[in-house]
Amino acid sequence: MTRVAVVGATGYAGAELVRILAGHPQVELTALTSRQYAGVPFSRVFPAFETLVDQACEELDIERLAQRAAVVFTALPHKLPMGIVPRLLDAGLRVIDLSADFRFQDRTLYERHYQPHTAPELLPGAVYGLSEVYTTQIRQSRLVGNPGCYPTSVLLPLVPLLRAGVVDGQGLIADSKSGVSGAGRAATLTTHFCEVHESFKAYKVGTHRHTPEIEQILSREAGRDIALSFVPHLVPMSRGMLTTLYARLAADADPAAVAACLERAYAGRPFIRLCGSAGRLPDTRYVRGTNCCDIGWRFDSRNRQLVLLSAIDNLVKGAAGQAVQNMNLMLGLDEATGLRPVPGAL
Amino acid sequence: MTRVAVVGATGYAGAELVRILAGHPQVELTALTSRQYAGVPFSRVFPAFETLVDQACEELDIERLAQRAAVVFTALPHKLPMGIVPRLLDAGLRVIDLSADFRFQDRTLYERHYQPHTAPELLPGAVYGLSEVYTTQIRQSRLVGNPGCYPTSVLLPLVPLLRAGVVDGQGLIADSKSGVSGAGRAATLTTHFCEVHESFKAYKVGTHRHTPEIEQILSREAGRDIALSFVPHLVPMSRGMLTTLYARLAADADPAAVAACLERAYAGRPFIRLCGSAGRLPDTRYVRGTNCCDIGWRFDSRNRQLVLLSAIDNLVKGAAGQAVQNMNLMLGLDEATGLRPVPGAL
Amino acid sequence: MTRVAVVGATGYAGAELVRILAGHPQVELTALTSRQYAGVPFSRVFPAFETLVDQACEELDIERLAQRAAVVFTALPHKLPMGIVPRLLDAGLRVIDLSADFRFQDRTLYERHYQPHTAPELLPGAVYGLSEVYTTQIRQSRLVGNPGCYPTSVLLPLVPLLRAGVVDGQGLIADSKSGVSGAGRAATLTTHFCEVHESFKAYKVGTHRHTPEIEQILSREAGRDIALSFVPHLVPMSRGMLTTLYARLAADADPAAVAACLERAYAGRPFIRLCGSAGRLPDTRYVRGTNCCDIGWRFDSRNRQLVLLSAIDNLVKGAAGQAVQNMNLMLGLDEATGLRPVPGAL
Amino acid sequence: MTRVAVVGATGYAGAELVRILAGHPQVELTALTSRQYAGVPFSRVFPAFETLVDQACEELDIERLAQRAAVVFTALPHKLPMGIVPRLLDAGLRVIDLSADFRFQDRTLYERHYQPHTAPELLPGAVYGLSEVYTTQIRQSRLVGNPGCYPTSVLLPLVPLLRAGVVDGQGLIADSKSGVSGAGRAATLTTHFCEVHESFKAYKVGTHRHTPEIEQILSREAGRDIALSFVPHLVPMSRGMLTTLYARLAADADPAAVAACLERAYAGRPFIRLCGSAGRLPDTRYVRGTNCCDIGWRFDSRNRQLVLLSAIDNLVKGAAGQAVQNMNLMLGLDEATGLRPVPGAL
Repeated sequence: MTRVAVVGATGYAGAELVRILAGHPQVELTALTSRQYAGVPFSRVFPAFETLVDQACEELDIERLAQRAAVVFTALPHKLPMGIVPRLLDAGLRVIDLSADFRFQDRTLYERHYQPHTAPELLPGAVYGLSEVYTTQIRQSRLVGNPGCYPTSVLLPLVPLLRAGVVDGQGLIADSKSGVSGAGRAATLTTHFCEVHESFKAYKVGTHRHTPEIEQILSREAGRDIALSFVPHLVPMSRGMLTTLYARLAADADPAAVAACLERAYAGRPFIRLCGSAGRLPDTRYVRGTNCCDIGWRFDSRNRQLVLLSAIDNLVKGAAGQAVQNMNLMLGLDEATGLRPVPGAL
Repeated sequence: MTRVAVVGATGYAGAELVRILAGHPQVELTALTSRQYAGVPFSRVFPAFETLVDQACEELDIERLAQRAAVVFTALPHKLPMGIVPRLLDAGLRVIDLSADFRFQDRTLYERHYQPHTAPELLPGAVYGLSEVYTTQIRQSRLVGNPGCYPTSVLLPLVPLLRAGVVDGQGLIADSKSGVSGAGRAATLTTHFCEVHESFKAYKVGTHRHTPEIEQILSREAGRDIALSFVPHLVPMSRGMLTTLYARLAADADPAAVAACLERAYAGRPFIRLCGSAGRLPDTRYVRGTNCCDIGWRFDSRNRQLVLLSAIDNLVKGAAGQAVQNMNLMLGLDEATGLRPVPGAL
Repeated sequence: MTRVAVVGATGYAGAELVRILAGHPQVELTALTSRQYAGVPFSRVFPAFETLVDQACEELDIERLAQRAAVVFTALPHKLPMGIVPRLLDAGLRVIDLSADFRFQDRTLYERHYQPHTAPELLPGAVYGLSEVYTTQIRQSRLVGNPGCYPTSVLLPLVPLLRAGVVDGQGLIADSKSGVSGAGRAATLTTHFCEVHESFKAYKVGTHRHTPEIEQILSREAGRDIALSFVPHLVPMSRGMLTTLYARLAADADPAAVAACLERAYAGRPFIRLCGSAGRLPDTRYVRGTNCCDIGWRFDSRNRQLVLLSAIDNLVKGAAGQAVQNMNLMLGLDEATGLRPVPGAL
Repeated sequence: MTRVAVVGATGYAGAELVRILAGHPQVELTALTSRQYAGVPFSRVFPAFETLVDQACEELDIERLAQRAAVVFTALPHKLPMGIVPRLLDAGLRVIDLSADFRFQDRTLYERHYQPHTAPELLPGAVYGLSEVYTTQIRQSRLVGNPGCYPTSVLLPLVPLLRAGVVDGQGLIADSKSGVSGAGRAATLTTHFCEVHESFKAYKVGTHRHTPEIEQILSREAGRDIALSFVPHLVPMSRGMLTTLYARLAADADPAAVAACLERAYAGRPFIRLCGSAGRLPDTRYVRGTNCCDIGWRFDSRNRQLVLLSAIDNLVKGAAGQAVQNMNLMLGLDEATGLRPVPGAL
């Protein structure tokens, strides 16, 4: 049993980590921290956990934490982790950070979109935790920068195709749609029920901070600069993310190469479900509560446009689930350990 | 490993049985029947199950079924089970029926509200599967009539109080609210998204067929005829049921007796969570996807009115979860086996 | 054309007042005040109003307001109106206040549930604005305390029956269900989309401040003290309120008296739609966006229990619509003026 | 007063026509037909209309209709109108057809995607009812083929830009999202509340029949063949449609030309609200219940990609509202007559 702690356990991603880890057969949840709810039983904050996770939340105390955990998940707003993670690593722990603080290898890129980085020396060694893509590196890492939800949904379909040259990197478009939990648990007018219900809209068109995160990986994998047109939208539902990608098939590629390439890339990976070019289309409902990423595609021969569709649960494969998958890899466990409860039809 | 089958696996209750049984450590799912989808992989009907439950649905063939299962769940519309269950029992199987066909001990009561009963000889031996109330009888039974969702939500708070004489049986009111999945998976105007969304309404006021089912048990436990005013309502959500009960405290009872009585009745039972007279109030969100029944209460001394509130997931404690709990009891397993995956905060 | 102003125009009730008044043929909207959005065009706060109501919100300035309006609607949180209304009345204006500040004739009752009243001298002259019940008094009033949404939904079905002695005042129960807009536009965890969606729950059981407001009117009309068991619930929808009332038929009353009494009380009133004892049941969807109150009922002869159901739009008949209806009465207009746009089927 | 009839009044588009026409100051609704509900009061089918539209639905009888109406709206499934419209025209009536039957000038295009056309002689004279684009032709027409909802949302932003050569017709992408009412009122598994709730998905990728309808107009206006990649998605809400368009700016065009071009094209048109390149983004909530089309845009200079966003209410500007706007044009009325009730903030 590995002892693990969740720092920032009472946001939505933190609570989802607790849900998954509480059912994980190889770990023991030794500490849950929360500034706002220190001293309050976790199940008082989230009554769904009553009788299941009743331990009290606590203030973050790095010394004490280091004695009680071997792996720490940090689920905090951007900027806070870079003040904490160095000390956790110094104490010999492994860290999976769910913020943007350790997702960028290029410090200046991070600083252009976020703020000055106070632990830049860690960036080269941090691994971008896209589990199916950087599996080997994650296995050997001590610090994982866990991907954002939008990047996960965009990169999983695209990376293998770009690597293999099946799609052209020009004119890439990602039209993404996210449930409201992606905005976090903070009470804002934007997440007010009456403002979301019977509403569908785009936001931060062309300016969302996940754009540089995605482009960094796309460019690295394509071996040249890739510019993505990224438009996120808000869906009146709690969980789920669907991304519709538009990519041009490479001039010399055969449409059949899409299936072949994706099948090869994801063979044996339990959480990638390929729906094919003629099969069902991904639906967020089918991945709700699971760590799966469903990928479907259609080819429009009239304009050589490839339409790729991916569905994930933004809180699971888009956050907590992928984080636990990364932990499994780091610990040498089967990557699916603790991540296979059967989801519901509803 | 006990071999189990689900007859009628592609309705919402059936699919929920599959979800729970697929994750149950002591059973093997050997057969899923569906008239509509015979020959189709279960995961084609419910893509959420892809890679998890891919076996094909099949036509019901009782002889073959009897050779492949020791326990059968029948999740069919009323009337069909009474044609099937006798033959399953004859073949030596144990049966948990989720319809109304085996919930009534009094044949005439059933026939007044449903139709002529074609297997009345089985009624005296069938046990009403309210797990926490008829535990001993369920353990010894071969045929369980699994309770309806509304009856479960009404009876769990009321039965102990009526048995102990803490509440008066006069003027009982159950104001219940159910999510839409309670109406089943059939496509009707009533369940059309646009007809339900931004709608809240009562239906079948005073005429719902769960009324005689509830009154049968209340009367049995109170030792005299109990008439209930029962008003069901439809809530624009998929899962969940909240019942608000209004009961008068018995003339000689102390309000503190409510807590004492419920605590005694449900001590050690993992799925009943008592919220107390001053604690949090039940919320369907807190029991979503779980087999829990949360019970809270408030006492209004001005008119000696006791308000009891219960929340369940109509598809779990109100159907498939309680059915599996009953199977656990019948098989001598811990009643919570396979029923404790941690639910989400959302 | 009467010049009217809305003080507190950017809450949900305020915005609904603006919607209705902007389409009212006999009034001119001369001023919209908002502390938070002073200087901002109303249509920037609520883009739905773009091209329709583009005038800027302004700080409240009572002197200036008095010169520009003959009628003022105050849609502010409790406590603020009692500091403003006396000065508006002194300036010769008529006021319809949507808070609780002028709903109670008995100052001590108000003070027990809210705070010290700083304009108690106005209470005896203020009229409780339940349009169909206090029509004559409203016509002659200069200050109307507009009813709360829950009180409106409870009182419209009950008052005529209590006045006529058709129902017994004992053991009255109101089980009410409200959409989320009733909680206002402030961003709180309670109104966060993810906390409301797939959730149904009761709140403030037996302690909601609308209870004394309702009991005050019931007691006045029944001529004796009436205690109500009132349980409000939150429904995952934006607009709408359904109340299910349980009342005992008076010992000497005939069930047919219910219909006769309600028909007599509401003859000729355009916004009360009686659904009868056998007809359709009220549904919040059918009154969405309208000033209607639909009332249905069923009688359970086994325990002489009368079940009454009422549906309103909490923002219209439960707030802004009734306020405009009251203004119409005060101005000697047809009470339905400006309140009859045809609602949608959805 | 012009006498108008609605043929097929009990589908969602039909009911929306009734809503709008019942409040229209220049028309009298003389007949509502419905095969399913013949003889039933319209307000029994849609109780929201009680006291407002109580007239009975009737079987379609063309002779009788011709005597009672000067304008007929046909809101029927594709194929039925082409059997009816010729006779209505012969009787001297004007017709606005909401199906696809009269949207195509090219018979073979219609027949490739629908079925054999039985009234092809009418196609050359039918006008495509995109009100702001074909205003002059609509004014003079006797038969209007009212546009589909998706085409309306795609064409209103694109047509002026294509006409003016501001955008390149190559690589056009329309990623559209529709509320559930677009699927109609028929009860199907696809529109079952539980299948839609917490679900977001694409459907008919590249195969939706609105694609040829859109391409026909785009090609006509661009003066050359335009191929569009069109992907429709289903949003868990009742009403509303948002389309995100991706177009490449023409090689010689300045980004500022977008605003200039759209402002010129839609100057003085009451229902087009341009949000600009830096202002708010369109949201379906802001156009709910209205005939408005809100259009916003952002330019990504890195890849010369123009992102255009449009929001409409699929039942109003996408169906019934535009139909009434077309009627207004045909009758020589102000195009906004009867279409300006103020919408709500919610």
